[in-house]
Amino acid sequence: MEKSKAIQKHLEWKGKIEVIARAKIENKEDLATAYTPGVAEPCLEIAKDESLAYEYTRKGNLVAVITDGTAVLGLGDIGPAAGMPVMEGKCALFKRFAGIDAFPICVDSKDPQVIADTIANISKSFGGINLEDISAPRCFEIEEELKKRCDIPIFHDDQHGTAIIVAAGLLNAVRFTGRKMGEQKIVICGAGAAGVAIAKLVLQMGFGEVIMCGSHGIIYEGCPTNNPVQEEMSRITNRDKMQGTLADALVGADVFIGVSKPDIVTEEMVRSMAKDAIVFAMANPVPEIMPDKAKAAGAAVVGTGRSDFPNQVNNVLAFPGVFKGLLSVRASSVTDSMKEAAAIALADIIPVSELKADYVLPDAFDPRAAEAIAAAVAAEAVKLGLNRI
Amino acid sequence: MEKSKAIQKHLEWKGKIEVIARAKIENKEDLATAYTPGVAEPCLEIAKDESLAYEYTRKGNLVAVITDGTAVLGLGDIGPAAGMPVMEGKCALFKRFAGIDAFPICVDSKDPQVIADTIANISKSFGGINLEDISAPRCFEIEEELKKRCDIPIFHDDQHGTAIIVAAGLLNAVRFTGRKMGEQKIVICGAGAAGVAIAKLVLQMGFGEVIMCGSHGIIYEGCPTNNPVQEEMSRITNRDKMQGTLADALVGADVFIGVSKPDIVTEEMVRSMAKDAIVFAMANPVPEIMPDKAKAAGAAVVGTGRSDFPNQVNNVLAFPGVFKGLLSVRASSVTDSMKEAAAIALADIIPVSELKADYVLPDAFDPRAAEAIAAAVAAEAVKLGLNRI
Repeated sequence: MEKSKAIQKHLEWKGKIEVIARAKIENKEDLATAYTPGVAEPCLEIAKDESLAYEYTRKGNLVAVITDGTAVLGLGDIGPAAGMPVMEGKCALFKRFAGIDAFPICVDSKDPQVIADTIANISKSFGGINLEDISAPRCFEIEEELKKRCDIPIFHDDQHGTAIIVAAGLLNAVRFTGRKMGEQKIVICGAGAAGVAIAKLVLQMGFGEVIMCGSHGIIYEGCPTNNPVQEEMSRITNRDKMQGTLADALVGADVFIGVSKPDIVTEEMVRSMAKDAIVFAMANPVPEIMPDKAKAAGAAVVGTGRSDFPNQVNNVLAFPGVFKGLLSVRASSVTDSMKEAAAIALADIIPVSELKADYVLPDAFDPRAAEAIAAAVAAEAVKLGLNRI
Repeated sequence: MEKSKAIQKHLEWKGKIEVIARAKIENKEDLATAYTPGVAEPCLEIAKDESLAYEYTRKGNLVAVITDGTAVLGLGDIGPAAGMPVMEGKCALFKRFAGIDAFPICVDSKDPQVIADTIANISKSFGGINLEDISAPRCFEIEEELKKRCDIPIFHDDQHGTAIIVAAGLLNAVRFTGRKMGEQKIVICGAGAAGVAIAKLVLQMGFGEVIMCGSHGIIYEGCPTNNPVQEEMSRITNRDKMQGTLADALVGADVFIGVSKPDIVTEEMVRSMAKDAIVFAMANPVPEIMPDKAKAAGAAVVGTGRSDFPNQVNNVLAFPGVFKGLLSVRASSVTDSMKEAAAIALADIIPVSELKADYVLPDAFDPRAAEAIAAAVAAEAVKLGLNRI
């Protein structure tokens, strides 16, 4: 039933995005203005001063949504063509939530260097690049390379969008449960794109200590299964150099953040956590622990990735506003401090007096999210002098 | 006056194209259908059968308009960013004349191999690629490489779009002046992208003999200034191995086709041509010879690239219909025979009884052009078995 509806709607849509003309061309004069010979003038102006591309072309409102199809949703490496329905959906969300023109592109290569080269080569006409569904640790390499080469913001949403929303939800959960910043023991399960970005952001924001767990258990310095990024993370997390399982890590922990696999957290594990524990179990479609079980085991706040439970961590809360803010000031890059500003702005939408166990994050359709995040990101860009208008 | 209007309109437009959402997302159910979890179903279907990308994504109506900015209009190598107003204009024309979604992309490299790699890497989500304003002879190499690597049509409009319209105009001019096919002596001035493609198409269609002239005069086999493509052309043109100037070539010629420089053809040169000569002087904005002068010197039919003279060779007559036809049958490539079919279909729009000296080509806004060409191209694709629907 659900299945056939999505397929049926996709067949009706025949693509979830469309390119239309803003310039109306109804007669020879229109043609001479929008095309030859008139178009030569803006071309020559941009040739003299490339920043005028923001004035004369769509660059200022245009984001590329780019994947290589290697980590599409929870489906894994299904290839670039098969990833396109997700990219088109993302583009439709950009328009719906922030009025941004987003165009989906799939890169047909598995080689991080080739992918980075390809994206850099086509980046000039866009105001920003949203990387999407690229597997870890390749995604880190591609993102870093593009940040060096491009003068527009590069944002891997699976990392940073997720991190912003989790940090916002965590901030409100900490407020709701009466905790103090800096005193949390946070266990993050999942050491891929999202887990690494969440760990970095919550550390940066000063929530407290972080222990990361991967598929081999707790990540510690020198662990032979670490990839380079995990080894790097091991040096800023797990300060007691703990070894062991996820269950070991959770004993006495204040916060569980799962971006891993279904059903890997038991009620017993939640019971071993600190009083009024905070649980974000975001494995899709089945969380690490179902909300009712987590609550029965004593969790005070529970969030998931699902729309049918409260406190949904839905990336649509962040990426539209982040890019809206970046584009509004023609930002040359996106920084960690902008992500922090976005998280705080998102959390602050809900006044402390209105926080509830089931309401630490705004609804996905809350129009305040994109507005608040855009304003915060733009302000931070201006503060850092990364604006170009 | 003219100048400020184009600039002013471009400032108003802020981009001549826009990406919109076809999928309306107004509630959580919409979100679950267009995005997660519903979107996983079309993704998995495409992973199993890539041809379903035509059903579930925009691929079937989507063309990439790609440049490297090296030969933009008559402006030359102004760079990828500065070429974008032309690409956006082209995309607006695709929509206006054929309802096709076209998206502009600029590639920031001068290396033909890098450009071909980049385009091949992003080609999967498009139904066709329109190459644009890439300098010769690099454009030939890029086109050939992409034809080998991509399973969608690759069409360099500066070559093939121009050739189709010139061939159509020439066909009607031959009909109008009562000439016989196969008996024309045709001089083509300009041995770049357009000149080479025109020469190939008029030879293929059997108009008669061709002599090409480049900046060093008549192109002959073994001429030391030939680039590889010109050397190749020298073997199928100029069968008498004539050497000399453009003026030498024109003596007794039936047809002059100029895709070169302003004011390089004199009245005396036209007078040296055969009676009722046919002159297509398409240098922009100033033709090789102005129509009034060519007519005074005895030319029976004169065409230019300009909208303010009759018989305008305007690419908008061809590319929308060509791609409309290709997309309608999901063609895997575009062949020389399809270009010939397009040229004949375009010429045939004007019944022989209605042909006039000033009316051998339809008006740029004639809605019959795209329709007739689309039907002819689609029929030829089906005939060749290059259709996929």
